[in-house]
Amino acid sequence: MFRKTIHIDTHGEGEIVDLTPEVRRAVNESGIAEGLVNVFVTGSTAAVTTIEYEPGVLSDLKRSLSFIAPGDVPYAHDRAWGDGNGRSHVKAAVVGPSVTIPVIGGNLGCGTWQQIVLLELDVRESRHRTIHITVQD
Amino acid sequence: MFRKTIHIDTHGEGEIVDLTPEVRRAVNESGIAEGLVNVFVTGSTAAVTTIEYEPGVLSDLKRSLSFIAPGDVPYAHDRAWGDGNGRSHVKAAVVGPSVTIPVIGGNLGCGTWQQIVLLELDVRESRHRTIHITVQD
Amino acid sequence: MFRKTIHIDTHGEGEIVDLTPEVRRAVNESGIAEGLVNVFVTGSTAAVTTIEYEPGVLSDLKRSLSFIAPGDVPYAHDRAWGDGNGRSHVKAAVVGPSVTIPVIGGNLGCGTWQQIVLLELDVRESRHRTIHITVQD
Repeated sequence: MFRKTIHIDTHGEGEIVDLTPEVRRAVNESGIAEGLVNVFVTGSTAAVTTIEYEPGVLSDLKRSLSFIAPGDVPYAHDRAWGDGNGRSHVKAAVVGPSVTIPVIGGNLGCGTWQQIVLLELDVRESRHRTIHITVQD
Repeated sequence: MFRKTIHIDTHGEGEIVDLTPEVRRAVNESGIAEGLVNVFVTGSTAAVTTIEYEPGVLSDLKRSLSFIAPGDVPYAHDRAWGDGNGRSHVKAAVVGPSVTIPVIGGNLGCGTWQQIVLLELDVRESRHRTIHITVQD
Repeated sequence: MFRKTIHIDTHGEGEIVDLTPEVRRAVNESGIAEGLVNVFVTGSTAAVTTIEYEPGVLSDLKRSLSFIAPGDVPYAHDRAWGDGNGRSHVKAAVVGPSVTIPVIGGNLGCGTWQQIVLLELDVRESRHRTIHITVQD
């Protein structure tokens, strides 16, 4: 098993960060040629998935997440805590905090147009995110 | 590899159970300090994800799942089988049956406000759920 | 670790393929009795999850995915690329590209009515899909 923990500063709701280069680097550093790599974000208002890292698709995804958790309805979480990020929690729980990808011949088993991304869903101006990359053979 | 299977009785649609203490206990029992833990629910009308275990957020999540699979539209599954749980199957397939979390220094790599939860989505009065917790180093 | 890569030809948007027999075969071939199996689809317009493989449920799932990413709204991806598959990318990112299932006594830890499925979400007439099945003990 090989573990690498990285930190990423995000800059507001809807930012989507391409983690693929960092994940690829961790796989290289692990020296593991065949196995799996798990990418996990700590915290309950961010998510990890795969998508084509293309501005149009990313904005389409953000709109669809707002169909699931709209910005213009009241949230019980916000009434209780005043955070204003009830919708962020809901989106994060539906998408999920992690993704697991095959490692094949020392490379990621993703498609050419399939990137590993961090979704910043929180409403705060900036967040310091912790991502654990775990490679297993 | 270490496996622990637990059973949980749920009490109706929308119940959300915090599995974090059970997962933490399994990780402790495994003696594994660095690795991953997978939490998987058997069955097609329940799901596993991470979320802040706070009543407001949990009710917000339930409302959003009903945007995805509303209670007031007819389901082909219900027409065919009369179970009345077509919406349960759909929600479970979208959220997914499992989550994988890093084990770091013998602890869970979740955030402080990030719990591992079982979503009971079935419409039956009660269900006996089987959850497999698998720890790997 | 044991890896098996399979290829499946799909025939249009909304096709759902039951991968369970192929995954079971890979687990048998691996000789691994206790562990986990990860099923991952390469590409950004398909997804993998678990669901009861019953025609009614499958059509209910497709309708719900169209609530998340409707066919009758414009997509920024389509404006930029003219692919017409903006909605496919969004659905795939929300459901996710992989699922991880326990291997117990050489069998899959799924429920009787819980199949492992490939969701073809792309709008093309046919696609050649690559699926990596990774078994670990």
